[in-house]
Amino acid sequence: MGKTFKWGILGTGKIANKFALGLATLPRAELFAVGSRSQEKAESFARTHGAKHAFGSYEQVAAHPEVDVVYVATPHPFHLPGASLCLKQGKAVLCEKPLTVNLQQAEQLVGLAREQQLFLMEAMWTRFIPAIVELRKWIQAGRLGKIVKLQADFSFKAPFDPQKRTYNPELAGGALLDIGIYPIAFAYMIFGREPVHVSSFAQLAPTGVDQQAAYLFGYEGGEIASLQAAFTADFQKSAFVIGTSGMVELPLFWRAQQLIVHLPEQKPQVFDFPYPSTGLQFQAEEVMNCLDAGMLESDVMPLDESLRIMAMMDRLRKEWGLRYPFEQ
Amino acid sequence: MGKTFKWGILGTGKIANKFALGLATLPRAELFAVGSRSQEKAESFARTHGAKHAFGSYEQVAAHPEVDVVYVATPHPFHLPGASLCLKQGKAVLCEKPLTVNLQQAEQLVGLAREQQLFLMEAMWTRFIPAIVELRKWIQAGRLGKIVKLQADFSFKAPFDPQKRTYNPELAGGALLDIGIYPIAFAYMIFGREPVHVSSFAQLAPTGVDQQAAYLFGYEGGEIASLQAAFTADFQKSAFVIGTSGMVELPLFWRAQQLIVHLPEQKPQVFDFPYPSTGLQFQAEEVMNCLDAGMLESDVMPLDESLRIMAMMDRLRKEWGLRYPFEQ
Repeated sequence: MGKTFKWGILGTGKIANKFALGLATLPRAELFAVGSRSQEKAESFARTHGAKHAFGSYEQVAAHPEVDVVYVATPHPFHLPGASLCLKQGKAVLCEKPLTVNLQQAEQLVGLAREQQLFLMEAMWTRFIPAIVELRKWIQAGRLGKIVKLQADFSFKAPFDPQKRTYNPELAGGALLDIGIYPIAFAYMIFGREPVHVSSFAQLAPTGVDQQAAYLFGYEGGEIASLQAAFTADFQKSAFVIGTSGMVELPLFWRAQQLIVHLPEQKPQVFDFPYPSTGLQFQAEEVMNCLDAGMLESDVMPLDESLRIMAMMDRLRKEWGLRYPFEQ
Repeated sequence: MGKTFKWGILGTGKIANKFALGLATLPRAELFAVGSRSQEKAESFARTHGAKHAFGSYEQVAAHPEVDVVYVATPHPFHLPGASLCLKQGKAVLCEKPLTVNLQQAEQLVGLAREQQLFLMEAMWTRFIPAIVELRKWIQAGRLGKIVKLQADFSFKAPFDPQKRTYNPELAGGALLDIGIYPIAFAYMIFGREPVHVSSFAQLAPTGVDQQAAYLFGYEGGEIASLQAAFTADFQKSAFVIGTSGMVELPLFWRAQQLIVHLPEQKPQVFDFPYPSTGLQFQAEEVMNCLDAGMLESDVMPLDESLRIMAMMDRLRKEWGLRYPFEQ
């Protein structure tokens, strides 16, 4: 076991709360400081989660000499300024997904981290949960044969409200950046390369952001990823990783605690991979392991992959004519 | 109950067998004659299913004065000649799906039926089974809210063999015409109109036919149909009809005997719609009802819809550069 790390968090919203709950399960992680634009919110968050310091600004977290690593949990458009602030103060950064709102911003952020020689990782927490770690081993070992198909959906019903984060273009709203990134990142993980075919169809909300969409990726070997994300309804909630020898079903794949193996002529076999708390702790453990090893990136969620995913989301938005107002 | 109908069947393959088994459950249907290019096969089929006449040619079935209606169960490329033969002899025709191998042939066949004022229907049997009849009532009644999404797959593993029907381009092989037509026809049934967006990706086998493919349809209201068919592996085997108020899952949708209703915050409810025999009898009942009523087409599976589906399959094949040798 390596050293204990002092964590800072920017933001006090839902995801910051979930992260703090996860962090509490890790003995070598200390929730040291939280920053918010509101001193009151920071204090309330610090009380709830036992953080040592509550700051009424992001700057104070970034500047605190004892902070080792900062988790950026603000809304998407504030990832670039928040994460940059921390990198400029010499802090390692775990940044909520999507890394930024577009490729231009993502390249800027990644460039800064590389220039500063500091650790940066996109918080694609799904990739570090036990079920997914196991799935990757199974695929590696050829247990499913050759993977020919991936099907993955993330959707929930979010009634239309132009002010809400989900639908507000000023906040880079839309299903794609909010939840579509999960099936897309999953496809990058499963196939490990760029698709040679990309097509998609989106329904835009009155605010111009995508309310529901499907994306179809085709790969050089003929493999297919059929992906979707939506705020219109609860869709099918499992992902399916389909190989020539068998299929794995992942109920609620982005937070999977179960792998259901379907082999020909056999009853489905259920394997459980329960985890404590919210599951957001596994990525924090990865960050600390990387820092211990002196690594500037994670091998499991490398920055070039974050850039490729961001480029794909830019490409899909372009197909739909979806530009955020701040991009004009 | 109307008159009893004397049925002829062209072909003695797997689907002809299944149809004969289904027909045996209908008291007013008589399996009267079977035709094959082989007298021996015809006789064996007639013995198995109790057909009165076994003919060593299709012509004899078509020409028999007592035959009321003929079911064309030959391989795809022989649908046009077989069905035309029967129409020219004044018979009503139920023709296996796909109606023909391309739009040009389908228009020719439909033109002939309309010119002769004879009944013709594509054997899209799924549409007539009890579960689907019930599903359509539920959708009509708004039980699922507005339908926003359809997901449907039909796939099985057929090892590559250039001679086999599945992979042989001379026999109009490929997953699309063989099984892809089921999800496509299902989308036409659910949304009742042409998509405004069509994209797809296919993996072609060494023989040039599609081994696996996914098709993405988008509709004017933003609705999405995500469809696939494959010979590469067993995919997810349920269709999902997703509305703003709930979702219906149809295990093995093309021969569904169950509707599983998923409503928000509720346990899934399972509704069983078992049927005897192979399920191919319901379309035969439809044919007889239409004939009783003096109709030349079915309202449930009209010829214009068969033409639209055929046109869509032509369009998809064109995207993939897939032409059958006899189309050159």
